[in-house]
Amino acid sequence: AVAAPVFAQANPKISWKMTSTYGPSLPPLFGAAQTFCKMIEEASDGQFSIRLYPAGEIVPGYGVMDAVSNNTVECGQTASYYYYGKDPTFCFDTAVPFGLNTRQMTAWMEQGDGLKLMRELFAPRHIVNFPMGNTGTQMGGWYRKPINTLADLKGLTMRTAGFAGEVLSRMGVVPQQIPPGDIYPSLEKGTLDAVEFVGPVDDEKLGLFKVAKYYYYPGWWEGSAQVSLYVNDGVYEKLPKHYQSLISLASSYAGMQMTANYDAHNSEALRRLIANGTTLKAFPRDVMDAAFAASNVLYKEFCDKDAGFKKVFENYMAFRDGTVPWFRIAEGSYDNYLGIALANAKK
Amino acid sequence: AVAAPVFAQANPKISWKMTSTYGPSLPPLFGAAQTFCKMIEEASDGQFSIRLYPAGEIVPGYGVMDAVSNNTVECGQTASYYYYGKDPTFCFDTAVPFGLNTRQMTAWMEQGDGLKLMRELFAPRHIVNFPMGNTGTQMGGWYRKPINTLADLKGLTMRTAGFAGEVLSRMGVVPQQIPPGDIYPSLEKGTLDAVEFVGPVDDEKLGLFKVAKYYYYPGWWEGSAQVSLYVNDGVYEKLPKHYQSLISLASSYAGMQMTANYDAHNSEALRRLIANGTTLKAFPRDVMDAAFAASNVLYKEFCDKDAGFKKVFENYMAFRDGTVPWFRIAEGSYDNYLGIALANAKK
Repeated sequence: AVAAPVFAQANPKISWKMTSTYGPSLPPLFGAAQTFCKMIEEASDGQFSIRLYPAGEIVPGYGVMDAVSNNTVECGQTASYYYYGKDPTFCFDTAVPFGLNTRQMTAWMEQGDGLKLMRELFAPRHIVNFPMGNTGTQMGGWYRKPINTLADLKGLTMRTAGFAGEVLSRMGVVPQQIPPGDIYPSLEKGTLDAVEFVGPVDDEKLGLFKVAKYYYYPGWWEGSAQVSLYVNDGVYEKLPKHYQSLISLASSYAGMQMTANYDAHNSEALRRLIANGTTLKAFPRDVMDAAFAASNVLYKEFCDKDAGFKKVFENYMAFRDGTVPWFRIAEGSYDNYLGIALANAKK
Repeated sequence: AVAAPVFAQANPKISWKMTSTYGPSLPPLFGAAQTFCKMIEEASDGQFSIRLYPAGEIVPGYGVMDAVSNNTVECGQTASYYYYGKDPTFCFDTAVPFGLNTRQMTAWMEQGDGLKLMRELFAPRHIVNFPMGNTGTQMGGWYRKPINTLADLKGLTMRTAGFAGEVLSRMGVVPQQIPPGDIYPSLEKGTLDAVEFVGPVDDEKLGLFKVAKYYYYPGWWEGSAQVSLYVNDGVYEKLPKHYQSLISLASSYAGMQMTANYDAHNSEALRRLIANGTTLKAFPRDVMDAAFAASNVLYKEFCDKDAGFKKVFENYMAFRDGTVPWFRIAEGSYDNYLGIALANAKK
């Protein structure tokens, strides 16, 4: 046997670039990318450094997948459902209508078949994907007029995209693709009747409460929304094994902080929105039922024409249908009891 | 300026011992400690290794706090509420009656004041604590006879401990401290009328369904139960900074896997229990209301006599009371709708 040379235990010097779909105006999202870079640098004793660029600085916000595929940048932060146009199966890496909640999504990815299936899906694009946070259940958006019944959705112009847009169009909505910077003026002018974005923390920053009064819940198209880290497969494979481990650890840690950030701060943001005149409303039951039915019709159509979609769909939905009933028992009954008990105690 | 010597970037060789309250018979719990050790070793390029010992091998299961305090071992895995007898404030690091659910607990620890307050609490014991997983909402336990009303709890001998035991004793229950190995025979012989342990995955392994038919939910004394990593403060401070970062990252990752493991597998375990004759039941409303009232009385008594408890209690409960109402809106309404829609679709 030959003794390993001393430098085998050294941390090699590596510098990467990272581009994001987000920017500093969305602190929980962009902050997770910052946390990821910080932890990689700290845990490698300063030897592995990643320079982070917000959307548009070196790569457009929705160009993250291509930029990482092509090794324009070594890695990126984005949400896979933005690439619905390339392949709708990417939505399972983020959110699909009436899909998994945050904990169920993590369970499917890490202890079910989720990560394995997503790695297979991303492999031909030369991307190794890692979960890096979740927004939690999103809100159903801002509306200039109340939605009292399904009929009130007919002809409504709404800023939304991807899979959700397809379902909503079956329900009579006219979906519009509008970049974040144009949302506020379009809603103010009435070019848009409604906008869905994220939840209280991020929506408050856009100022939507000033131009639309009604804030609906839940966002049934995003029962949770997972954010992803993409790493180019060629550069990933060249990394020392212990730097590969660091990427798993730091992306998971950064993602945990993202969800904790939303969970800790959404409540305060919602209280401020309500104090500023926002009317909080639940979607009427007929809207929810029509959305559930339309989603199931659309799923069937996609499965019939796309075997790759069908393979992931069946795995994901079997996990959902097996897991959701358990969540209603201990978790659901506990949350419901405590919510009501605290509300009654306040009276 | 002087150039840093080459070995400044090397990973020094370090070997630690870790003791656990758990053992291989509890795979999600003990598995998290195994995952932690594995990731520390991998991400340090094999240079930082931690040898894990199950409960009883070098330290008794409930001796983890003392063993880490005294540096008998460098680190340990346990749940802080086992040390209720030393200081009831430790319960806030794990679970308290009608406390935070899993995501709320992580949010309080990481984005609220939780970790800071817990670090202050542990400092005089020479321990640096890290969150390392959560079981989710636990079940309310196994009962030989049905609990149809609060009166059915009077005189019931039940295996439970700590804070929950105090609340239950105010409700007429006779709490018993019994080691895990004696639970099954005591319940079989009728020395015990009831047992609370964890949830379907762990309870199934103990075989409790063979000797008690009624399985109640929710475990209102454990709306979530956080597991902790303890590290001796002296050895922690002597670690290179990048190894300290690795401990934060690896404990968070291992904890994420623990919760995902429970979330992915509890549903299957519950289906098997029901197939084996278990009757699943919700606690009656008068039991829940009496438990909520008794918990609040006990909290007030503890706050009145213990300023340290009061300080943490007030911070924790302000976080709960601010956050729970938000969780009922998007998350709660989504989970409730989907649970009911899937149940109806099955019919």
